[in-house]
Amino acid sequence: QVLVLCSQLVGLLGITLIGVWMGKYLGGFAWDGSDQQFNLHPLLMTVGLIFLYAEAMLVYRVFRNTTKIYIKCLHGMIHLLALICAVIGLKAVFDNHNFNGITNMYSLHSWIGITTVVLFSLQLLCGFVSFLVPGVSRTLRASYLPTHVFFGVFIFGMAVASALMGITEKLLFTLDNYSDLPAEARIANTAGICFLVFAGIIGYLVTR
Amino acid sequence: QVLVLCSQLVGLLGITLIGVWMGKYLGGFAWDGSDQQFNLHPLLMTVGLIFLYAEAMLVYRVFRNTTKIYIKCLHGMIHLLALICAVIGLKAVFDNHNFNGITNMYSLHSWIGITTVVLFSLQLLCGFVSFLVPGVSRTLRASYLPTHVFFGVFIFGMAVASALMGITEKLLFTLDNYSDLPAEARIANTAGICFLVFAGIIGYLVTR
Ligand code: HEM
Ligand code: HEM
Ligand code: HEM
Ligand code: HEM
Ligand SMILES: O=C1O[C@H]([C@@H](O)CO)C(O)=C1O
Repeated sequence: QVLVLCSQLVGLLGITLIGVWMGKYLGGFAWDGSDQQFNLHPLLMTVGLIFLYAEAMLVYRVFRNTTKIYIKCLHGMIHLLALICAVIGLKAVFDNHNFNGITNMYSLHSWIGITTVVLFSLQLLCGFVSFLVPGVSRTLRASYLPTHVFFGVFIFGMAVASALMGITEKLLFTLDNYSDLPAEARIANTAGICFLVFAGIIGYLVTR
Repeated sequence: QVLVLCSQLVGLLGITLIGVWMGKYLGGFAWDGSDQQFNLHPLLMTVGLIFLYAEAMLVYRVFRNTTKIYIKCLHGMIHLLALICAVIGLKAVFDNHNFNGITNMYSLHSWIGITTVVLFSLQLLCGFVSFLVPGVSRTLRASYLPTHVFFGVFIFGMAVASALMGITEKLLFTLDNYSDLPAEARIANTAGICFLVFAGIIGYLVTR
């Protein structure tokens, strides 16, 4: 369980670094279409689809002695919260793009990002229908479980890859001296590394 | 085994699109420090650390009735070939950066990329030492196997994430109208999607 602790530390560090990058270097947060509204996008996406997503998956590994139905609800609720963050985080970029007249959905980041959110929503729906709605047969539940776990882990990987591409894009958009590694670049790169290490630990914990 | 076929098609399509992007749109290949030498980087990295890497992992799933020692050698040899491609692919960018006086190792892409190659080399070494060198006890081999498989899959994920960041970077460096989605951008984005789908299918096949 020392790995659980490490994952929490490195995950929270990643989120904090994104918060510092957006909050201190890129001008803070707002909800007015401006670039400060954009700044909510990286924060909400990583809080939702990386941190909360992982917390929801870990629930089965951490609370081993709690009643199953209680853990199930917790698992589903945290995933729902993650989706809410993600949807607000998407609204933040789309509003900002429309406000500035920037085309939507052109980048590889946005293509993979939107696919991630759509698959995540479907996974949430399938999870609710299969495991929480009463009356689904035990054998059906059991046969869906491996698929549920595989997609759960794969979509998580997609979210991390989206975040790494997003960090790369934002650095190239805002810095003209990325290759000099100013503080901002070191902070953002380090956030990316934190998410990668976080994903490694979480992946390890969830697949055994 | 229809999934194996699909994986091959989508993987080769991804590689082909990278080849067309570098070959037709970015000026082709050379070994003279120029941007044509850079062009070998994306091609060799994806051929090595995505396509060949996956082929090597699939070997155990495809040749189920061949002698174990023969498959092991094939698995190790293809991974070795993958490493050779990766090393030449790295030499291609480093030469190009030095030739143009561009700083090395500043980007998140390069940080995660180099970590991927280092971990891959270590995995290759550990694989050889544990599974091919005679005299290692059966229990030691068996206890290392799950770690070997976990890191094998995780490093593969890292390679795919590196490639997606690399595609994003190169598009932003070379296009000033990425958001208009010219043919070049559509080709490169599609290559990225191919690698993602490829990774999904390979991940599925290798983890069950
Ligand atoms: C799970 C994580 C993420 C997902 C699913 C995601 C998804 C998306 C989507 C769908 C768009 C398109 C919006 C539009 O076209 O109007 C977008 C735009 C953008 N995102 Fe993210 N994002 C994620 C994380 C991040 C992070 C961490 C950053 C930066 C630190 C970032 C930076 C950007 C930038 C700069 C854009 C505008 C340029 C573009 O359209 O690619 N994203 N994101
Ligand atoms: C997008 C949403 C979801 C994702 C990404 C997801 C992902 C996962 C993952 C990765 C696991 C494996 C956890 C582990 O073994 O440590 C898992 C297990 C499980 N999930 Fe979900 N899940 C989602 C939604 C749901 C929902 C809504 C339910 C219904 C309440 C649900 C019910 C379950 C159950 C019953 C297990 C099996 C736990 C066990 O017995 O090992 N999931 N989920
Ligand atoms: C497994 C895949 C890959 C790995 C491990 C990898 C690794 C690396 C490394 C270590 C560097 C730093 C070189 C230096 O600083 O001199 C680099 C640079 C670069 N790579 Fe890749 N690469 C991969 C795939 C790609 C792909 C597919 C593309 C583009 C289509 C790409 C585009 C670039 C670009 C534009 C640079 C120069 C800018 C920078 O330093 O980030 N890479 N790559
Ligand atoms: C970077 C190099 C390597 C990577 C990424 C890697 C990755 C993997 C993966 C993902 C698997 C699971 C395959 C599956 O179940 O379908 C595997 C299995 C295996 N690998 Fe490697 N491997 C590497 C090098 C080696 C080397 C050099 C050897 C020694 C010859 C080796 C020996 C084995 C063995 C014996 C198995 C077990 C197959 C079984 O019985 O299920 N690996 N490897
Ligand atoms: O800014 C850069 O441009 C080049 C390359 O993309 C041009 O071919 C490179 O490697 C950089 O770091």
